[in-house]
Amino acid sequence: MIYSSVSSPVNIATLKYWGKRDSKLNLPTNSSISVTLSQNDLKTTTTAYASSEFNEDRLFLNGKLESLDSERTQACLLDLRTLRKQYKDDGVAELKLTIVSENNFPTAAGLASSAAGFAALIYSIAKLYDLPSDLSELSKIARKGSGSACRSLFGGFVAWEMGEKEDGSDSKAVEIAPISHWPSLKAIILIVSDDKKDTPSTVGMQTTVKTSDLFQYRIREVVPKRFEEMKQAILDKDFPSFAELTMKDSNSFHSVCLDSYPPIFYLNDVSKHCIKIVQDINKEEIIAAYTFDAGPNCVVYYDEKDEDKVLGEVYKYYGNVNGWGNKKYEITNERSGINRVILTSIGDGVKEIEEILSIPN
Amino acid sequence: MIYSSVSSPVNIATLKYWGKRDSKLNLPTNSSISVTLSQNDLKTTTTAYASSEFNEDRLFLNGKLESLDSERTQACLLDLRTLRKQYKDDGVAELKLTIVSENNFPTAAGLASSAAGFAALIYSIAKLYDLPSDLSELSKIARKGSGSACRSLFGGFVAWEMGEKEDGSDSKAVEIAPISHWPSLKAIILIVSDDKKDTPSTVGMQTTVKTSDLFQYRIREVVPKRFEEMKQAILDKDFPSFAELTMKDSNSFHSVCLDSYPPIFYLNDVSKHCIKIVQDINKEEIIAAYTFDAGPNCVVYYDEKDEDKVLGEVYKYYGNVNGWGNKKYEITNERSGINRVILTSIGDGVKEIEEILSIPN
Repeated sequence: MIYSSVSSPVNIATLKYWGKRDSKLNLPTNSSISVTLSQNDLKTTTTAYASSEFNEDRLFLNGKLESLDSERTQACLLDLRTLRKQYKDDGVAELKLTIVSENNFPTAAGLASSAAGFAALIYSIAKLYDLPSDLSELSKIARKGSGSACRSLFGGFVAWEMGEKEDGSDSKAVEIAPISHWPSLKAIILIVSDDKKDTPSTVGMQTTVKTSDLFQYRIREVVPKRFEEMKQAILDKDFPSFAELTMKDSNSFHSVCLDSYPPIFYLNDVSKHCIKIVQDINKEEIIAAYTFDAGPNCVVYYDEKDEDKVLGEVYKYYGNVNGWGNKKYEITNERSGINRVILTSIGDGVKEIEEILSIPN
Repeated sequence: MIYSSVSSPVNIATLKYWGKRDSKLNLPTNSSISVTLSQNDLKTTTTAYASSEFNEDRLFLNGKLESLDSERTQACLLDLRTLRKQYKDDGVAELKLTIVSENNFPTAAGLASSAAGFAALIYSIAKLYDLPSDLSELSKIARKGSGSACRSLFGGFVAWEMGEKEDGSDSKAVEIAPISHWPSLKAIILIVSDDKKDTPSTVGMQTTVKTSDLFQYRIREVVPKRFEEMKQAILDKDFPSFAELTMKDSNSFHSVCLDSYPPIFYLNDVSKHCIKIVQDINKEEIIAAYTFDAGPNCVVYYDEKDEDKVLGEVYKYYGNVNGWGNKKYEITNERSGINRVILTSIGDGVKEIEEILSIPN
């Protein structure tokens, strides 16, 4: 039996991925940009085992046996096995795998865990197979599992370049800047209480691509320009520009959702209140940036030097929920609607770790 | 003392007016289409008086003295007086005016009363002055007061053609089809309880025109095509097409609001529930169309033959509020969030009436 253990981060896009031009290969209709979040707060840990004693490929996710049968997962496994055979044709690629994976955050929190999950899956097997491939090469495999997973391989600021080729060989993640470029970037995530199931993003994307008039303009005209501007703002460590572009792109993404037919709503009245809080924080100068994925949860980016101003304003309303640690400000206008907050910061990409997750009985 | 009394309807756009290319003349960035609603349910009644005994122009709105000083109102009065002088230069145009105006619906209902109000103001004075102008000519004056007021002069289905000229002389309302073309068209208005003040539409429009990337595409590409399609659907009495276009245009309008910076939200969680109800009603065939103006209230158009299906589904949730008259269905999932409903139908344009509103002391 051989094994390998890795951990992988969550990433939250600041320039959104929304729309596939090829849903089998997970090729996007536009390039995107994300910030990788610290694994101290949010991570997936995965140990991949290979053994001649296994009779089938298996995945244990948070202790439960889950299917590996999806076309997407199978495509990833096939790619990795092919690479292993090319690299060393010694029978290891033919061994059945057992993957054990755990998140350190509640799946119920509604945070897209599939990105971290697929990145960990791909990286653990790549390490198990001792593949020499670089991260951008592996990102093409992770992308086939879950589009945004390709960005979770890298730390810091990451671009997913959409590419042009039909086979997807140029649709990959690249590092824009490492964590060391801007280590003081932080984030607070506001987890919105919501019992309603949101439209799954794969379904939502297809609806938008097929029905939204405004979507075509977004991918053709708006995103390409914004992609270059946001990259530059990151390289310049220009927070106000980075923040404005981030907020505008979140707005634009949710606009094309609403322009879909039937319309897709991910933001609710609590999300709107979060936007209002950020607008109040930014009244004098832009020191905070909200962004929303395909759900009502709000992620707010800020620089460490503005922490008290940013967190203090959020605390006013939601200081009584879990997740504040030893932070303490004043509660003046307590509100309901937020379940918990997660305080985190920019973080590293996938990495090998010592910890080993054992195979459940 | 001479006087004239008129009443004027509310209109609700099915292809939205959002954006001014000239805010002094109220020239729009796109053409729009509306349905005029019945004055039995919603109307403004106005009596215009002229007398040499008046010392100044005055407006009494719902019993209260209001200002006529706004630049917009002054522009309307000047136009009407000029026309009167051209028509008959007998000193009547120089007489001071007293305008007495009343709505038969609570202003607090959040229904855009300015359209009905300005249409009544312009038409009452035009009648007082015995002007021979046709309604499209008068619509250019009403437009200067409040853009959508130009559509309230006509009954039935109305287009506001944006025009091209800088002086606005070709930006006017025209009839697409009279009430007799499709008299069975009905509407239910769901008035949403909302204590928060929405962004005034004039301010919101300017923000959208200035900051939304997607807006340019909406006015250039989306609306011109939809305008022709919606006109045709009305002429064909093709409810499913009319409904789909109406819902898509409401979505598109609220999308460009959300794409504005800062984003503008008019829909809230109750509005979204109204959309959900209409989607449920339309599960098998499209028999209802939602549309939202610059606020959370929902207007649902339907054909009389589908009344029980449409109203029955709304009643399930909101059957306990005021406005249902003698309609009675089953309440199965009572919800809060709606203040009252207004049941109405397609209606006539402005008209002279016998009733005279007397001048308050």
